[in-house]
Amino acid sequence: MNAPQAGDAARDPFDDGRALQDRLPVHCFGCGTLNANGLHIKSRWEGEVFVCVWQPAPQHIGFPGVVYGGTIASVVDCHAVWAALSMHCRSEGHDLSSGSPPFGVVTGSLLVNYLKPASVALPLELRATIVAHGERKSVVACTVRQGSVTCATAEVVTVRVKVEA
Amino acid sequence: MNAPQAGDAARDPFDDGRALQDRLPVHCFGCGTLNANGLHIKSRWEGEVFVCVWQPAPQHIGFPGVVYGGTIASVVDCHAVWAALSMHCRSEGHDLSSGSPPFGVVTGSLLVNYLKPASVALPLELRATIVAHGERKSVVACTVRQGSVTCATAEVVTVRVKVEA
Repeated sequence: MNAPQAGDAARDPFDDGRALQDRLPVHCFGCGTLNANGLHIKSRWEGEVFVCVWQPAPQHIGFPGVVYGGTIASVVDCHAVWAALSMHCRSEGHDLSSGSPPFGVVTGSLLVNYLKPASVALPLELRATIVAHGERKSVVACTVRQGSVTCATAEVVTVRVKVEA
Repeated sequence: MNAPQAGDAARDPFDDGRALQDRLPVHCFGCGTLNANGLHIKSRWEGEVFVCVWQPAPQHIGFPGVVYGGTIASVVDCHAVWAALSMHCRSEGHDLSSGSPPFGVVTGSLLVNYLKPASVALPLELRATIVAHGERKSVVACTVRQGSVTCATAEVVTVRVKVEA
């Protein structure tokens, strides 16, 4: 109940309360503010949990009324990569708002287990935690819920990569 | 070299040479002809291999020039589900062109391993095989290539479900 909130400067001097994607503009279809046609997910730390609430659009269906599994995989992928990226930035004292860090984070593998249909009328609530964090690889666990229903669980292995100057 | 081709009536009386998605219209974002804003993948059997060649659009990027991993997961998901669906239809003698079968196929789990970046300028070539096929669950293995480069491998577990009348 008293978990640090996003914007809690005592916990993270690099967190100014904005979604991470609003601090570092990128072109990614899933999360980039520079992609006019993308999904535009927004992710924030709430204590040790990385949270994203995202409303699917009417076209994001697999069956009428039901969110498309590929869209769920997409938002999970981006959310997990931002979790790992921000953890690497914290480790190195890099402020996301100061520009791109001198490394990137990409997806090594993505596993999604689909448990219950998700309604396209309701937002998806993603909650991710970093279960392992190394210099190169991180493992991010994520649940996708709608209210009390867990629609999917996921595990994403991310890989830190060098960025060419 | 002499593998049966799509449209080989001697092998499959239900294959009329069209992509499966053009024979059974659905609303899915990834594969449905009824989804105006979707990805519109097209899948065909070539012998024992289920093939899809799909050109990403410019917005389907993770990084500039590189196909977004969530989009790769999406096309793999749909392609695998159609592979399993058509196998169930064959088992039961259901002609896809005659309308929806009395069952559906959904994704149970989706695992994608990202091996090499895929260029957004080139088509993705998906080749899937059914490695296990039960009355309810199927396991579909899929590779995603661009020419000689294997960009990703995937394994999808599909689940056959009842469709309410």
